[in-house]
Amino acid sequence: MVDDNFYLELAIKEAWKTQCQTLPNPAVGALILDHNGRILALQAHQEAGKPHAEVLALKEAYFNLTQDSNILPLEQSIQIHEYLKQKAHSLFHNATLYVTLEPCMHEGKTPSCAALLESLGIKKLIIGTKDPNPKAQGGAEYLQQRGCKIIKAWENKELQKSSILANDLLLPFNSLQKKGNFILFKYACRLNGSINGGQISSKETQIFMHNLRCKLDELVISGKSVLIDNPILDSRFNSLQSQKNPNITILTRKNDFPQTAPLFSIPNRQVRILHSIPNFSGFIMCEGGINLLQNLLPQIDMLLVFLSPTLSTYDLAPHFNANFKLLHSQPIRNDLALWLLPKKEC
Amino acid sequence: MVDDNFYLELAIKEAWKTQCQTLPNPAVGALILDHNGRILALQAHQEAGKPHAEVLALKEAYFNLTQDSNILPLEQSIQIHEYLKQKAHSLFHNATLYVTLEPCMHEGKTPSCAALLESLGIKKLIIGTKDPNPKAQGGAEYLQQRGCKIIKAWENKELQKSSILANDLLLPFNSLQKKGNFILFKYACRLNGSINGGQISSKETQIFMHNLRCKLDELVISGKSVLIDNPILDSRFNSLQSQKNPNITILTRKNDFPQTAPLFSIPNRQVRILHSIPNFSGFIMCEGGINLLQNLLPQIDMLLVFLSPTLSTYDLAPHFNANFKLLHSQPIRNDLALWLLPKKEC
Repeated sequence: MVDDNFYLELAIKEAWKTQCQTLPNPAVGALILDHNGRILALQAHQEAGKPHAEVLALKEAYFNLTQDSNILPLEQSIQIHEYLKQKAHSLFHNATLYVTLEPCMHEGKTPSCAALLESLGIKKLIIGTKDPNPKAQGGAEYLQQRGCKIIKAWENKELQKSSILANDLLLPFNSLQKKGNFILFKYACRLNGSINGGQISSKETQIFMHNLRCKLDELVISGKSVLIDNPILDSRFNSLQSQKNPNITILTRKNDFPQTAPLFSIPNRQVRILHSIPNFSGFIMCEGGINLLQNLLPQIDMLLVFLSPTLSTYDLAPHFNANFKLLHSQPIRNDLALWLLPKKEC
Repeated sequence: MVDDNFYLELAIKEAWKTQCQTLPNPAVGALILDHNGRILALQAHQEAGKPHAEVLALKEAYFNLTQDSNILPLEQSIQIHEYLKQKAHSLFHNATLYVTLEPCMHEGKTPSCAALLESLGIKKLIIGTKDPNPKAQGGAEYLQQRGCKIIKAWENKELQKSSILANDLLLPFNSLQKKGNFILFKYACRLNGSINGGQISSKETQIFMHNLRCKLDELVISGKSVLIDNPILDSRFNSLQSQKNPNITILTRKNDFPQTAPLFSIPNRQVRILHSIPNFSGFIMCEGGINLLQNLLPQIDMLLVFLSPTLSTYDLAPHFNANFKLLHSQPIRNDLALWLLPKKEC
């Protein structure tokens, strides 16, 4: 059935495409319907410091309605805000906005979305989940007081499913807010679970991975992996404008760990070699095999598996027992990315 | 971007939900926009003999526009056709229909969709792929001659991606048409590839599986699996109205195969015990482990994997090397269904 859940879930799925790439910002998706119910735009926030999902959706919607291509080169949020305020007039007066997260009230790197929505006269807002950030929340109340009809999924029985999905989308952001870090474990494997035998993932999956590496505070790897794979661990395949090679933490029991792997020669990066798991801070990604996963599982907030649809005779590493909640899956060309939440045993 | 590809792909995804459940009919999805571009309906064909996707979408769209609940209990295609012809008047005159497959011209178990679309005055049709069935094709030309604007994805460069996806959707149907059988291999596994250790899939996945079993001409299993698992292989968890327990072919090298498993006691089923792979006819599903998959791979048209997001210490069966194209993936509660096409080596 094509209802509010349907549109909200389209926005949620769009937002998963840039999950974690937006950190320290939340992943957010937005969809706009015109007064007749036609979809004008479907967009997701791409990176912190860049326009929020609502702003990108308004930009797309404005272009769809006007064909005014002057808006297309505008990439800074403040530019788009100003342009829309000047040019949109009554275009959006009867539009409906679906957004996975309450629009911000906060003038941070970009102007407040709530203020922009007010000045454009958006009539109706369907919101997936409340902004948990005390600095940014209040957008829903602000707009409601100014005559906008607000539907909050978390207070609406019929939107319960979307509300849960919108909450799942926020897990990395919430983790970072609440405990100061978000720890993502990533591995690539084949259909039969094998993780050895050279490059598993496609080029497109590597780009996806390298985009995430640009956003890391730290990349964690086992000493064993460094010695066997001799990795570079940079982000050279990223498709973002701002390449940043992640700092590295090597976990090893070895003293005098040999510093010969190419990862040590990457400029502008810190490498630390540790004998025990430290207190992590920020967005952390652990890349490794099943042994490292088993050791780190109690610390891990989310698991990201890149599954390649092949079978191979390469042996599987010894496994252990663990259950996960499937949060989201998305095809990346011929691979599949699975976002999984560890089920902590009671 | 929200364009014809976007809507066509929504219809394609909807159709994958009932992939193979529609056999011997093709899986088909349909989406309707009103004259303002609002989505009125998104539907898929459910089972052979039941209404086609277009008819279900028109039914949903009619109800959305009129709130006339008299149409809701109508389940037979002919009833819906007649009701719409009588009541819809000019409701759909400016509507746009996206359909993954050319509307049928064929009066089979249900009246022709092309004739219905003509009489309702649908203005524009976007079609994913040509009907390969000589008995049913011609719907596009018929409607075009009667003033309907037809966009054929397979002749349109901008819709090339959707056209390929719409074609993939037809693979089971086309296989059945062209070579008289469609052979689907199914197995369930965990994230680490393990397939032993009791029930892997959730109840929802079992329902999905049992729906497919209702549609089989034959279920193929290895003698080894019968002896180890002692299975019933019925379709008791199906959610369709028409339960049918599949006929069974057991492949074994054993003479005097013991007929003790519960599968032998299911009424109205044929069981045959064979020592070599026969010439299959119709919709065939093979359920088994990696050894059976390896033996049957040259015969197999498609692989369906139900992936459960768990790790376990159960050993993996010995594997072999094989590559697949990921045709489609869909979450079923906490499991994931992967539809895979074997890549035949040249």
